[in-house]
Amino acid sequence: MDSRLKVVVIGGVACGPKAASRLKRLLPDADITMVEREDVVSYGACGLPYYVEGMFPDVRMLTETPVGVSRTPVFFEKAKGFRVLVRTEAVSIDREARTVKVRNLDNGKEDELAYDKLIIATGASPFRPPIPGLELDNVWFMKRLEDATGMVDNIEAQGLRRAVLVGAGLIGLEVAEALRVRGLDVTIVEMFDQIMPQVLDREMAALAAKHLESNGIRLVLGERVTAVEGNGKVEAVRTNQQVLPADLVLVAVGVRPNDRLAREAGLDCDPRGGIRINAYCQTSDPHIYAGGDCVVNDYVHPITGATIYVPLGSTANKHGRVIANHIAGLTSPFLGVSGTSICKVFGYTMGRTGLTEKQARELNLDCETVLWSGPDRPHYMEGSQPIVIKLIASKRYRRLLGAQVVGLGDGAKRLDVAASAILFEATLDHLEYVDLAYAPPFSPPIDPIVTAAHVLLNKLNGLANGISPLEARKRMEEQKDLILLDVRTPQEFEAVRLPDERVVHIPLGALRERWQELPKDKDILAFCKVSMRGYEAQRILNAHGYDRVCFIEGGLLAWPFELWTPGT
Amino acid sequence: MDSRLKVVVIGGVACGPKAASRLKRLLPDADITMVEREDVVSYGACGLPYYVEGMFPDVRMLTETPVGVSRTPVFFEKAKGFRVLVRTEAVSIDREARTVKVRNLDNGKEDELAYDKLIIATGASPFRPPIPGLELDNVWFMKRLEDATGMVDNIEAQGLRRAVLVGAGLIGLEVAEALRVRGLDVTIVEMFDQIMPQVLDREMAALAAKHLESNGIRLVLGERVTAVEGNGKVEAVRTNQQVLPADLVLVAVGVRPNDRLAREAGLDCDPRGGIRINAYCQTSDPHIYAGGDCVVNDYVHPITGATIYVPLGSTANKHGRVIANHIAGLTSPFLGVSGTSICKVFGYTMGRTGLTEKQARELNLDCETVLWSGPDRPHYMEGSQPIVIKLIASKRYRRLLGAQVVGLGDGAKRLDVAASAILFEATLDHLEYVDLAYAPPFSPPIDPIVTAAHVLLNKLNGLANGISPLEARKRMEEQKDLILLDVRTPQEFEAVRLPDERVVHIPLGALRERWQELPKDKDILAFCKVSMRGYEAQRILNAHGYDRVCFIEGGLLAWPFELWTPGT
Repeated sequence: MDSRLKVVVIGGVACGPKAASRLKRLLPDADITMVEREDVVSYGACGLPYYVEGMFPDVRMLTETPVGVSRTPVFFEKAKGFRVLVRTEAVSIDREARTVKVRNLDNGKEDELAYDKLIIATGASPFRPPIPGLELDNVWFMKRLEDATGMVDNIEAQGLRRAVLVGAGLIGLEVAEALRVRGLDVTIVEMFDQIMPQVLDREMAALAAKHLESNGIRLVLGERVTAVEGNGKVEAVRTNQQVLPADLVLVAVGVRPNDRLAREAGLDCDPRGGIRINAYCQTSDPHIYAGGDCVVNDYVHPITGATIYVPLGSTANKHGRVIANHIAGLTSPFLGVSGTSICKVFGYTMGRTGLTEKQARELNLDCETVLWSGPDRPHYMEGSQPIVIKLIASKRYRRLLGAQVVGLGDGAKRLDVAASAILFEATLDHLEYVDLAYAPPFSPPIDPIVTAAHVLLNKLNGLANGISPLEARKRMEEQKDLILLDVRTPQEFEAVRLPDERVVHIPLGALRERWQELPKDKDILAFCKVSMRGYEAQRILNAHGYDRVCFIEGGLLAWPFELWTPGT
Repeated sequence: MDSRLKVVVIGGVACGPKAASRLKRLLPDADITMVEREDVVSYGACGLPYYVEGMFPDVRMLTETPVGVSRTPVFFEKAKGFRVLVRTEAVSIDREARTVKVRNLDNGKEDELAYDKLIIATGASPFRPPIPGLELDNVWFMKRLEDATGMVDNIEAQGLRRAVLVGAGLIGLEVAEALRVRGLDVTIVEMFDQIMPQVLDREMAALAAKHLESNGIRLVLGERVTAVEGNGKVEAVRTNQQVLPADLVLVAVGVRPNDRLAREAGLDCDPRGGIRINAYCQTSDPHIYAGGDCVVNDYVHPITGATIYVPLGSTANKHGRVIANHIAGLTSPFLGVSGTSICKVFGYTMGRTGLTEKQARELNLDCETVLWSGPDRPHYMEGSQPIVIKLIASKRYRRLLGAQVVGLGDGAKRLDVAASAILFEATLDHLEYVDLAYAPPFSPPIDPIVTAAHVLLNKLNGLANGISPLEARKRMEEQKDLILLDVRTPQEFEAVRLPDERVVHIPLGALRERWQELPKDKDILAFCKVSMRGYEAQRILNAHGYDRVCFIEGGLLAWPFELWTPGT
């Protein structure tokens, strides 16, 4: 009788192959079988939008190793030492007998695979909203290689011109760029009244939306798609307010964890979907592990009191490693996720890590926020680009709770530093002293994430009285009698302005002489290009006894509403 | 009598203006005077090499704010609210009387400035090595604006062609690129037998050196400059081994802290140079603060038992803030530096944070290292570029001690994550779970810094038997009877090879069938392009009872010695 450890892996993308490959390295004697419903395994699904864009000509690149070796079943058998069954569906799990019933999707034949350890890595499926018309031709989801190749083939063969994308999340935005690059008209319909509702707070989303629109993307926000219409082929998308002509539709309104198999086997699952696991990726049955997009994760700190679902290839690979380690007797507990998400569209980075302000408020956390804008490198350096950073920190312990970035500049590395700070439970007082790598090609002497932390510390210390652009806008609408104090140079003032009659222009350099021109009995909202001078103005006026002064965080660079160019 | 807090700041670049500006925001009533020996203040000295390169046409950009306002004494007086005296040298400090004697360098007039708090931010000066000829025309240091403009003017007016740079540190390399871009012949002479001896370990430096040479920089390593020769103008640089013709010489062999004033005032200084400060940047006289390039710092963790001197604009700005905070009664202790240093030359990033392996060994720390190479983004993405990462961790507690990066890819953000991990005292087991921002434009699903941590964990766990390229080379030289097992594909093997007759080529995919071709009584050094397959080969052979197998870390991509292209 075969005494080798028998391991069955259900699912052949990311978590599954990672777990199987590492386990074979750790336990060379293990008898590992991986089953996969599709006919390809281990492909880089995240690369599909870039194939659609035309960045590389053959979608099979997504199934290859960096040196061009195809990750076929034969590859895994020969190079990695385990068996792969494609076109094979796992039908059910018999936990008592420790077997998995599988079915060959080509010939219908069923088989039983015995296991000592079972790994469920069944991934997620695009959510199909309950609206009519999704079965029409040229309505796509973006998950499998065929989705991307089919879309590209049809664009070329049928000359598709008008794309309507349902959902302004990561995949929707990435595909929007891809289709724009291909020359299509692109409209995105989003049920929420902002893009990236799961990732960005409103003001950050508004800035990113501006950039999308300036690149020719039409945004239809706050409308619900009620039907996809057409005759055989798609012809239009109907919302609760209008009909949008379309000959190509992408539905990208999130994914749902494939947890059916686990549920039917009686494994503990989250009521909202997703298999529950412990720190070693064990399910409620210790012989069964689960990882990747089919599980729910814990947040890195138990502050949220709830699991979160953020399906990502990065997390799936971590799970795979954790699972292999635990089966082989190496303990390395998974520490949870911070909800980090990022994308780059038309050169513009948008992302977050940790909690958004909205999430933090919903959790009733006593927090303070800051919005900061500025260049990602010294202004004299080629390639210097602006970024906007938002930080959220707990008021009492000044711990970093979340960070968001948008902009053409390098926001990714600032997010990575924030993600590190969040996992390591750093306070802002620690974050400001990280010895970040400084040279002009990389950052200003004080890194943007540190400057943002400084301003937030100034707020927490009662020095800086910053308000968000949304708060400023609200006050501008509600209060008639306020002053918008623009402290930029005359040259800057000539170039672009806040379109409001209450704007008073006193350059910062003149304010120490001209402060008496301002009344003490009105709210004064100071600002400049990025509001560093706006803050300075607040301090100058405070020193002269003005106690109703604040500054608009991020200044005009982070102003998500319209600006006025004199002479136009 | 004037009861306002009187503050004198000595030094007008980075730390000084930062401290003065913030202090004025915190204490509007403070009476602040900043004195500066030169005629410009608050300029971005780090940008000088980019001016030399021609990235921007007017060096005064380095004295301007991002919106183009010149940071003159008038600017500081009007916008920031404190007085600036340029061309004014601080001659001596009378600690008892709390006065500073200053001298106007134009008219020789002396004055006494009274202080309640004194801030010494006198910076550093380029080290002048004790060799003859440094007074010749066209021998430059790179510190002041005139150094850069003078060099550029003379290159253009006199048609200078042959540059010899003394010192292969950060400034030497940055100027080397700048002069190459200007079309000059560039030779760098370095006393140590590697470039960046203070920053990179040997094998990392060797990789970076390859890149410099491929961009036309001539490196003369391990030679000591004994004289600069010429007649009025420089004509040659003489080393202990040769004479190098030169019509332009840059001496960039480090800087020395300007601590004379502090020493003469009896303040505690490091025997090797640099004012000693506490966590609030107070000197041994609590009424006197110091910060920036004139002080020595503590390492972020007290493991080294010694102060370190890493003069950087980023640190100087932090000091300025710490000083202002403390004077104003806000405590925010400075946490030390990690020795982070970085530069980018010909698109190639090289840097480190924390301890190098050499430093860790000298401190007798029980550490393990790893070298990792691979793409910074998925291979199918435009702009994907290789990077090489070296990590150093303590063996026992697996704490990250240091990280180095070299390569065309984005190494800076991996350094920033490592710098965070080092300050936050993270172990590798924590580092691997940072929820770094993943999407294909930014990184592979498992970020390079995490993959590197994984390999190092594998080494610490006794799974991966990796050796550095230097160790491999040593064994290749010392052991006759070893096997170099190349497990790449036949296509890769045809393209480029390790030039050694002991190379045996068995693609990884064939190794599970052909392992018996290998002897068990010889050392086997496995490798591939990046040695992920090399590691896999080690595990496969281990499973078959081979216990003399290791892999060459980083593979051919990180091989710092020559390679052979068949057919050439």
